[in-house]
Amino acid sequence: MNTRRGFLQKGLLGLSGIVLGSTIQSTAQAGPPTKKIKEDPFHLGVAGFSFVNFKLDESLAMMRRLDIKYLCIKDFHLPYNSTENEIANFHEKLKHSEVIGYAVGPIYTKSEKEIDDAFDYASRVGVNLIIGVPSPEDLAYLSDKVKATGIKYAIHNHGPEDKLYPNATIIYNLIKDLHQNVGICFDMGHDARDGQDVIKDVQNYHRRIFDIHLKNVTSATAEGSTTELGRGVINIPLFIKALRKVNYNGKCSLEHEKDMKDPLAGLAESAGYFRGVSDT
Amino acid sequence: MNTRRGFLQKGLLGLSGIVLGSTIQSTAQAGPPTKKIKEDPFHLGVAGFSFVNFKLDESLAMMRRLDIKYLCIKDFHLPYNSTENEIANFHEKLKHSEVIGYAVGPIYTKSEKEIDDAFDYASRVGVNLIIGVPSPEDLAYLSDKVKATGIKYAIHNHGPEDKLYPNATIIYNLIKDLHQNVGICFDMGHDARDGQDVIKDVQNYHRRIFDIHLKNVTSATAEGSTTELGRGVINIPLFIKALRKVNYNGKCSLEHEKDMKDPLAGLAESAGYFRGVSDT
Repeated sequence: MNTRRGFLQKGLLGLSGIVLGSTIQSTAQAGPPTKKIKEDPFHLGVAGFSFVNFKLDESLAMMRRLDIKYLCIKDFHLPYNSTENEIANFHEKLKHSEVIGYAVGPIYTKSEKEIDDAFDYASRVGVNLIIGVPSPEDLAYLSDKVKATGIKYAIHNHGPEDKLYPNATIIYNLIKDLHQNVGICFDMGHDARDGQDVIKDVQNYHRRIFDIHLKNVTSATAEGSTTELGRGVINIPLFIKALRKVNYNGKCSLEHEKDMKDPLAGLAESAGYFRGVSDT
Repeated sequence: MNTRRGFLQKGLLGLSGIVLGSTIQSTAQAGPPTKKIKEDPFHLGVAGFSFVNFKLDESLAMMRRLDIKYLCIKDFHLPYNSTENEIANFHEKLKHSEVIGYAVGPIYTKSEKEIDDAFDYASRVGVNLIIGVPSPEDLAYLSDKVKATGIKYAIHNHGPEDKLYPNATIIYNLIKDLHQNVGICFDMGHDARDGQDVIKDVQNYHRRIFDIHLKNVTSATAEGSTTELGRGVINIPLFIKALRKVNYNGKCSLEHEKDMKDPLAGLAESAGYFRGVSDT
């Protein structure tokens, strides 16, 4: 209870409230230092894939529990062929849980036609960011498409097994001369699994990083797998420091590819870790 | 994968390994900065009361999931009249989950006889710390008891509703002239609910704080209730900084008095938050 509220109560209570008012005031002074509000320009979200085994309602119940407000929408929650009405119902459900669907994807495309469909879907859903995995031969078309639509497109890296986009550097070199709205969905876990330095990648490519799949990994090798944020080999405090330094203002969306049939505890621990680092 | 292992593999593989060896080496150099190990003298634990609705096996399954190694033992998991054999089985179960039962309690006593029983129980369980709520008239007896047994005793504060021990200051003033092994189990949440400054209390009473019930609260008033570590009014980063400064070397045991029929997600988020703050 802060001093201002103490004064307000004092005012409202009139004479008899003077004593009460000053009691509240002195309690406020003796009380614990309350949490400092230090708002970063980036926010915690969840990548829809974390909920691959759950219906939308179940996923939103978990998000309420986690107090996370941003969701990257996967098609198993909102199919590509959804009607206007279905899309409206979807957003209504999210709103009811105080969740914002801020992007769609990852969407895999193999032709210009499929890219058209992806942009059409994003437009109907009403988001201005697509996470995707396009065919390399469609990149020039993609560049024209972001220019024409105003919708941003972030290519997702998937680690050493990914023949097309294993890491951020390879994506960056492919897109650096394309329209500035073609960028990277930086999967830091897969980047680390590919032996890359995720801190340097943030420093080097931040202007083109539009979204982040937040996770840690058990090892910086192909054998590494997702683990809770505080338990892996990536130094998350340094990573968040780097995000601050470059003024990253997108989302950091937890993609928890562990215990995927029971992800709540892992997501909760990672959300807590992110908040703990952010608050310190 | 570090450089040394690269060299080792190179040596083992002979000539054909030279290329492989140097590949591994350069991957290691390009890799992400691995997590700094910064060990604090205090460790995360769980207060048994968090699991009041769960059997021991279920509680230990949650602790494995949370990767938490220390448990303050409550009697609903190990009754006061347990036989030697039952106590051995209990410890065997904990060991199987890589958990150490580091203390017993809180134990409520109303007579010298009940204090004797509590110390006898602690001795049979094999711990050297009791968390308890004694009658004020038994404090001198308690002082003799800790001296005679070598077992420490920490009095637990329970907030504004607690007529005997609402906060750390009241406990400290009652025990400061007693034997040095009579101390405080500092329930920071209840202390804050009683309008106290938990940071100052750590600074002032740390020599007598033997255990901490770690939590946050929704408000620094009687109406406040337990919430996840990162969501309450107590500034946990400052609190942990204070613990470091005074070289606190006991446990910080999560007492999650929220969603007590389904505490895993809340415990996980709080554990993550504690680790995130600690790692930063």
